[in-house]
Amino acid sequence: MQALVEANNGSASAYGNDSHTDLLNTRFGEIFETEVAVFPIVTGTASNSLALSALVSPFGSVICDQVAHIQNDEGGAPEFFMHGAKIVTVPSSNGLMQVDVLQKTIHEKKAAGLLAPPIHALSLTQTNEWGIVYQPPHLTALSAAAHAEGLSVHLDGARLGNAIAALNCTPAETTWKAGIDVLTFGGTKNGAMAAEAVIFFLNERTRPHIQDFQRRIKRSGHLWSKHRYLSVQLLALLEGNLWLRNAAHANRMAQRLSNGLKKHPSITLAYPTESNEVFVTLPNATINTLEKAGFGFYRWPTPPHISGTMIRLVTSFDTREKDVDAFLSHIFP
Amino acid sequence: MQALVEANNGSASAYGNDSHTDLLNTRFGEIFETEVAVFPIVTGTASNSLALSALVSPFGSVICDQVAHIQNDEGGAPEFFMHGAKIVTVPSSNGLMQVDVLQKTIHEKKAAGLLAPPIHALSLTQTNEWGIVYQPPHLTALSAAAHAEGLSVHLDGARLGNAIAALNCTPAETTWKAGIDVLTFGGTKNGAMAAEAVIFFLNERTRPHIQDFQRRIKRSGHLWSKHRYLSVQLLALLEGNLWLRNAAHANRMAQRLSNGLKKHPSITLAYPTESNEVFVTLPNATINTLEKAGFGFYRWPTPPHISGTMIRLVTSFDTREKDVDAFLSHIFP
Amino acid sequence: MQALVEANNGSASAYGNDSHTDLLNTRFGEIFETEVAVFPIVTGTASNSLALSALVSPFGSVICDQVAHIQNDEGGAPEFFMHGAKIVTVPSSNGLMQVDVLQKTIHEKKAAGLLAPPIHALSLTQTNEWGIVYQPPHLTALSAAAHAEGLSVHLDGARLGNAIAALNCTPAETTWKAGIDVLTFGGTKNGAMAAEAVIFFLNERTRPHIQDFQRRIKRSGHLWSKHRYLSVQLLALLEGNLWLRNAAHANRMAQRLSNGLKKHPSITLAYPTESNEVFVTLPNATINTLEKAGFGFYRWPTPPHISGTMIRLVTSFDTREKDVDAFLSHIFP
Amino acid sequence: MQALVEANNGSASAYGNDSHTDLLNTRFGEIFETEVAVFPIVTGTASNSLALSALVSPFGSVICDQVAHIQNDEGGAPEFFMHGAKIVTVPSSNGLMQVDVLQKTIHEKKAAGLLAPPIHALSLTQTNEWGIVYQPPHLTALSAAAHAEGLSVHLDGARLGNAIAALNCTPAETTWKAGIDVLTFGGTKNGAMAAEAVIFFLNERTRPHIQDFQRRIKRSGHLWSKHRYLSVQLLALLEGNLWLRNAAHANRMAQRLSNGLKKHPSITLAYPTESNEVFVTLPNATINTLEKAGFGFYRWPTPPHISGTMIRLVTSFDTREKDVDAFLSHIFP
Repeated sequence: MQALVEANNGSASAYGNDSHTDLLNTRFGEIFETEVAVFPIVTGTASNSLALSALVSPFGSVICDQVAHIQNDEGGAPEFFMHGAKIVTVPSSNGLMQVDVLQKTIHEKKAAGLLAPPIHALSLTQTNEWGIVYQPPHLTALSAAAHAEGLSVHLDGARLGNAIAALNCTPAETTWKAGIDVLTFGGTKNGAMAAEAVIFFLNERTRPHIQDFQRRIKRSGHLWSKHRYLSVQLLALLEGNLWLRNAAHANRMAQRLSNGLKKHPSITLAYPTESNEVFVTLPNATINTLEKAGFGFYRWPTPPHISGTMIRLVTSFDTREKDVDAFLSHIFP
Repeated sequence: MQALVEANNGSASAYGNDSHTDLLNTRFGEIFETEVAVFPIVTGTASNSLALSALVSPFGSVICDQVAHIQNDEGGAPEFFMHGAKIVTVPSSNGLMQVDVLQKTIHEKKAAGLLAPPIHALSLTQTNEWGIVYQPPHLTALSAAAHAEGLSVHLDGARLGNAIAALNCTPAETTWKAGIDVLTFGGTKNGAMAAEAVIFFLNERTRPHIQDFQRRIKRSGHLWSKHRYLSVQLLALLEGNLWLRNAAHANRMAQRLSNGLKKHPSITLAYPTESNEVFVTLPNATINTLEKAGFGFYRWPTPPHISGTMIRLVTSFDTREKDVDAFLSHIFP
Repeated sequence: MQALVEANNGSASAYGNDSHTDLLNTRFGEIFETEVAVFPIVTGTASNSLALSALVSPFGSVICDQVAHIQNDEGGAPEFFMHGAKIVTVPSSNGLMQVDVLQKTIHEKKAAGLLAPPIHALSLTQTNEWGIVYQPPHLTALSAAAHAEGLSVHLDGARLGNAIAALNCTPAETTWKAGIDVLTFGGTKNGAMAAEAVIFFLNERTRPHIQDFQRRIKRSGHLWSKHRYLSVQLLALLEGNLWLRNAAHANRMAQRLSNGLKKHPSITLAYPTESNEVFVTLPNATINTLEKAGFGFYRWPTPPHISGTMIRLVTSFDTREKDVDAFLSHIFP
Repeated sequence: MQALVEANNGSASAYGNDSHTDLLNTRFGEIFETEVAVFPIVTGTASNSLALSALVSPFGSVICDQVAHIQNDEGGAPEFFMHGAKIVTVPSSNGLMQVDVLQKTIHEKKAAGLLAPPIHALSLTQTNEWGIVYQPPHLTALSAAAHAEGLSVHLDGARLGNAIAALNCTPAETTWKAGIDVLTFGGTKNGAMAAEAVIFFLNERTRPHIQDFQRRIKRSGHLWSKHRYLSVQLLALLEGNLWLRNAAHANRMAQRLSNGLKKHPSITLAYPTESNEVFVTLPNATINTLEKAGFGFYRWPTPPHISGTMIRLVTSFDTREKDVDAFLSHIFP
């Protein structure tokens, strides 16, 4: 927010041809230790959808895990931006795609010939929808399998910072060094007002898409006349590694929450807590109590034979230890 | 073919404003015992996709079984015609959608709010992809559940004639009397050169879509300047119930084939033979022998732990008893 | 900017279900003296395109003046959001559409039947691309002609404030009282960081589009998780009629500029100065001098037989008298 | 028709993998004296639209004359297939695009940067909408100007045969030798039941589009399961140069009609009669008389100050001398 106020002073030419944009390419290039083309965009939905629209022809398809955000939570935006290209999903137990499943599905679609749109891109999510983190060798193997079949690889990194903090690796190691071609870099979930970025790691697969990418942004109404207000939010997050410090803090708060919940023998977590999300099934009465106390979370559709409801608890850069403890004290008074 | 030759004699005005088109509405109205609006279209892919594009908004979705043709075999055409609307699939063991599964999925998508495109239509297939026939009460229950939630109901009837012949019911009983709003009527699989039809059964859900449907046909390049050549193919199929006689014959040939296969203890059919399709897993050596002998069929992707390959055998209006017997004799020499 | 900082304090639920949004409907309702549905959106391109996508079917078209922004300056966004619906343009001398030209074009397209997409909406621009202001009776006559043929009427109001200030009328008089159904309300050109709004004036033509409009916003990636940051910018503009005071100031600065230019007998303005835009043809040498001095403006493509180049000079809320005088002194040293 | 009946005998595999399709590439290659990839498609609207969808990105545009079929007579199909890419039109007096106008428009759109979709293709019509024939050197100059700016060149050849007959040139001279990259070859207007073809002349601009073109055909519902019925119609037209003989005959009948009309001092033709179309303004009473006598033609929207109405008279392969004379005798009894 401070960064926005500063950007407000002074003038700049319209439509992104300003010093902030140049600075973005430089700063992200330093952080990722490679040459990048960065396009700031205001929402994650638009970032994911624009990135995919560059990689996937309208008559093609993109493959992802069945629980991926692009399939379930974008209101159909990817299909809109991709002009009706299909999303092909594969099953998994924990939202991590397996290499053999990927290969098998690609081969099946190829065998279907004209009846199935060809798969042009693989989209992965780090950390994934269940808060699980892909290990870099796993990403590398998936990317290699995709590249071998002519696919490009997209990473939905709305929570990339949490993964890097959890893996204690460099940003490069979980992205382009693991074969990622295009990244959706998440800022909003990490402290920005509203700012994400599509980041192309320059290589022979991505270079052809960069020249016209700004046209796709304009054509979808995502080019601001005062685009510097997007850039400064991202630059502020990068400053002093604020994004990674925010993410590490959120992860610690999730661990605190997870540990607090696991102390109680009646509670089983649905997934291990690897980043900043905790999935837990609680009695409906408890959930109602928590909501009345002002806590907010998503409820998952729960099969009738399960008693209680699974909820998702997300910690963030501004979650405090006392917030976690207060939450726990409402469950176990 | 004879019908085409006759249509070639004499002249007619362009773009479907001719007596053949009027005749279509009358004849189909008689056969289905209700008021209909009939639009002849050259392929099933276009017919299904055009019908769905009328029922589903670009920001909406259509629900169908996971093995439906519109999901797996149209090369992405439904998404193209629906401008990127989503296809939501539900699982089943035999390609028949169950009412509770339909209702549960509709409710889940509603609960997802803006994150999930709203479901605007239900698409069913009669006979379905595994050659299984929906019983009219089953269709009625599905349609009622759909209508209760504001959905329209589409029936992919590429093989409708086979279902009617198998059910020994009237065309009305398995369509609008069972709650179907819009039908894709299949002609090509039943003897036509290339002719299908989208048939709207007139009611409050379908009437708003009829006025502009011809525009959708024109806009997708499916309006012929000599449109009578489509109409006459359909009229010829209706003449003397040729379409139903063709279908009944194909069903009988499938039964003969099915019975022949089942005589052999080593052979298990994947699905009961209810119409004109037989699904059977055979040793790969046998399959190769059959192909060398000139028989044609689709192979299904088969899991590695299965020995042999599942193939689909389709009988048609011009399959002869001796063709079936020759086929069997190649398997059991 | 101050409003943004305040919005940053305190928490709010995601996706626009917050008090700011309710407040928007109330405040805009007061200003326009009627019931409205307000949807804040970050850019004018997205606002115009989303509004048109609600009014125009993919197989339809929208009619506008040949110089309209939606035809020439949105990078194809309207066609993207409208899923390929056409933009039909009519000629004019000054960017003001004439009623008889509108009627004639509608009738010609109707006569073309299936060959021409039907016109579903009229889109007007106030103030228009040449800085000319539609008089309310003119708007009323155009809207009446459109409504008589079943069209809805959209107003691109990126510079609506300047028109209201110039007309010295109420916001209602140049919008819904003149037959406008849907308005793109411009905030960014009037002082906001990045905030526009689509405003539906509730009537029988607009009501059907309101329910699903938020879905269109989500599907195009324009729904912010922290949507209040959009709302507060608009509310700040409305506070104490800041938007109209900003616009009136910009108009006065344009008059000062226009009067200064007209003093010199060698200079002819291309259009009368009615709002905050001045179009003037200057010698290329003069233009280069101005650019070197740091002034920014658009150059128009100029026919070869014209000496010099036409440029567009836009004044804004933060243009000062001394800026205008400095500009003039560079032309007439 | 005879060809269709023959194709009906014998069987063939589905979806175009048959000997007829191979034969098409060979036969068209001979006729055009170069290597081609031929895709038979049932309508001209679909052929034009599919061809353009391969050449033009969704965020791009195609340039054509203001009276081109793709702009005015396809019901919005090109925009549908191109996923909302724009059609940019240029004015002309007779439907022939001029090289300097083409170049000027390309440069203006380039200068507009992100605001205007880049022009990816030039689409020309031979013979054009007014029955005028492009001379090969004119086509060559237009193509060269287009290629120099990175555009591909499409030729709408619904009436190509009439142009070749009028020019007395080879098919190659008015297509790829004049720089045409992709041709819509018209069959329906030249005697086929319903059959056109998209013909790619193989070069570095067209090769990338050929591999996936069949997918575009399938995705738009234009792939017939009995595709040989399309091929045989085209092969029949090529046999013994039937298409050119049909076209030459139609041209002669148009000349006879034109000459007959011009004998009368009161009649002025709107355009010279160069192929098989005659445009003439007649008194409304005369037009009514002709329609009552069973003659069919299109009426053009005529400005109110003109007395009478302009009609278009089209001769075809089955127009007889006595038909022409009968028509004339109704005008000049």
